[in-house]
Amino acid sequence: MLPQTLQWIGGASGHLQLIDQTQLPLRLEMLDCYTPEDTWGAIQRLSVRGAPAIGIAAAYGVCLALREAPDDEAAARAAADYLATSRPTAVNLFWALDRMRRAIHSHRGSSASLAEHLLRVAIEIHDEDRRRCHSIGRYGAPLIERCRGVLTHCNAGALATSEYGTALAVIYEAHRTNPGIAVFADETRPLLQGARLTAWELQQSGVDVTVICDSAAAQVMREGRVEAVVVGADRIAANGDAANKIGTYAVALAARHHGLPFYVAAPASTFDLEIASGDAIPIEQRDVGEVARPFRTQTVPDGVAVYNPAFDVTPAELITAIITDHGVIEPVTAERIAEIIHESVEVTPAASQTS
Amino acid sequence: MLPQTLQWIGGASGHLQLIDQTQLPLRLEMLDCYTPEDTWGAIQRLSVRGAPAIGIAAAYGVCLALREAPDDEAAARAAADYLATSRPTAVNLFWALDRMRRAIHSHRGSSASLAEHLLRVAIEIHDEDRRRCHSIGRYGAPLIERCRGVLTHCNAGALATSEYGTALAVIYEAHRTNPGIAVFADETRPLLQGARLTAWELQQSGVDVTVICDSAAAQVMREGRVEAVVVGADRIAANGDAANKIGTYAVALAARHHGLPFYVAAPASTFDLEIASGDAIPIEQRDVGEVARPFRTQTVPDGVAVYNPAFDVTPAELITAIITDHGVIEPVTAERIAEIIHESVEVTPAASQTS
Repeated sequence: MLPQTLQWIGGASGHLQLIDQTQLPLRLEMLDCYTPEDTWGAIQRLSVRGAPAIGIAAAYGVCLALREAPDDEAAARAAADYLATSRPTAVNLFWALDRMRRAIHSHRGSSASLAEHLLRVAIEIHDEDRRRCHSIGRYGAPLIERCRGVLTHCNAGALATSEYGTALAVIYEAHRTNPGIAVFADETRPLLQGARLTAWELQQSGVDVTVICDSAAAQVMREGRVEAVVVGADRIAANGDAANKIGTYAVALAARHHGLPFYVAAPASTFDLEIASGDAIPIEQRDVGEVARPFRTQTVPDGVAVYNPAFDVTPAELITAIITDHGVIEPVTAERIAEIIHESVEVTPAASQTS
Repeated sequence: MLPQTLQWIGGASGHLQLIDQTQLPLRLEMLDCYTPEDTWGAIQRLSVRGAPAIGIAAAYGVCLALREAPDDEAAARAAADYLATSRPTAVNLFWALDRMRRAIHSHRGSSASLAEHLLRVAIEIHDEDRRRCHSIGRYGAPLIERCRGVLTHCNAGALATSEYGTALAVIYEAHRTNPGIAVFADETRPLLQGARLTAWELQQSGVDVTVICDSAAAQVMREGRVEAVVVGADRIAANGDAANKIGTYAVALAARHHGLPFYVAAPASTFDLEIASGDAIPIEQRDVGEVARPFRTQTVPDGVAVYNPAFDVTPAELITAIITDHGVIEPVTAERIAEIIHESVEVTPAASQTS
């Protein structure tokens, strides 16, 4: 049984508790946040990661500014501005904080305290994410429920969201009718979210999981151990090109070569219809130390260059279907995307598994 | 300037000195071996690795049995048997030791001491490997000398051989006429031979090298940063299917998708013409700790399965050409292989970059 990735404990003067993901898989430690500063640190240190989870944590973080003075509007605004500086790239963070700012504004004239009002909105953000994840799971499960084995990359799971996840929601849901399903989890260098987090949460949930080096995914396919691939996405262009954790593209190429379906699971909010194709998605470059000094052990000689793109883009033509909370998009074309996604885009954030 | 991977110091009562590769890239430490036991330990601990280098080290190791008593045939035989137990899979190890055993036998009636005789044979083994590596370099360089960038996987370099290497011999030779050539080195999980060893030896040799995560290779191709791939091989079947370090197959798939030539560089001795295709090449399974506990840090939860195949097989149809010390095999067909390899097979060992 998987503990909650993050939860609010108590009423309007309560606090935020979350799984300290930096301690996984060795220790399951809960981290209690009582102030916006505690929350900022938790996001910044990656104790909580994954774009949806970060957004939810930040929303609760604003509520923490009001524990002592439940109507201190200035404190709530300051907390929202401050929390926005915790990580630069998670779109959900800014979206959730904007929504909290609007809630501060809309509170004027309300009979409830600002603290109660904001907590209600934060819980709403949290609940909406839960519903989105479960919806993705239900839409996606039929696609893989007859598979003996599936492969995933990085962590697009409960730990990246409110619960259940995106790619892993599909697997969890399929596991209900197909409990023997075997999951191969790429370890996902450089930060090993697959080995550390995906393996942990699948194991906790009683799903059969095997960790492999990223470079072994193609061999695992060649040996017939998996029959489909399911991954998350960080941003999807209007034509269906999908940005996700580095290595996703290589997995998609291998899946295509082996004739395996390659599924992307992401909420409708992950689509960025302003972007025509993946060519316009900027690829974040991350610190070279992630590659050169894993676990504080130097592996790359001093003075040697390291190239560490955090994401890659899988072109739509390699994606069999995109599983969203609004339904399954198949085939992946701009027209089908526009049909299914259209009205949802203004409402919800660009989401998913940033880490 | 690259130091010798291993060398014999002095005459028949001299000793073996080798680069302690377990200390790279942090420290360049030379390890002096004075006994067969020292050599056994160096091979077993991976202070020396790469099939050709292991074979050479073992040959010298037999000579070390005769430092005190230069005609002690029993000691030499015992050393050969003992050194064969240092690592189970390096074909060159057994081949080199068989050759030393034959040399012990053929010494009878010779005027030189057994120690002098065996040292001569060990030096011969060493020199032959040097010639093979340089020959591979010369044959292969024209294929890549106009490339701005090339990609390699694992370490098929000077550190895996007497000097110069196989895949890296091609790069070193191309670098003479194209000093601006940029090499992208896959870090090569789980043991990181690319990050630790390939990066180090290319840097020492003044070649521009950039380390990437294995999963970033396809993205590097998509960005147009490399124009060819060159890798080594551990065993090549009669039809050209090539076994090499895990991850090679995925790189070959990505190269094919991007229309890039994919070259395998290996001595003729790497061909195993008894094996019709790669399907018959056994895939060694390695210790799961290599994946689950890199640098003594646990990354995979207790109780989660790990699958750690050490090699994969790249089918001949994905290989543009095989660069051997006897010439370039292109296209890679059983007929062309038989033509070029035919007579060399009985003479030399199945070779290359085991580790």
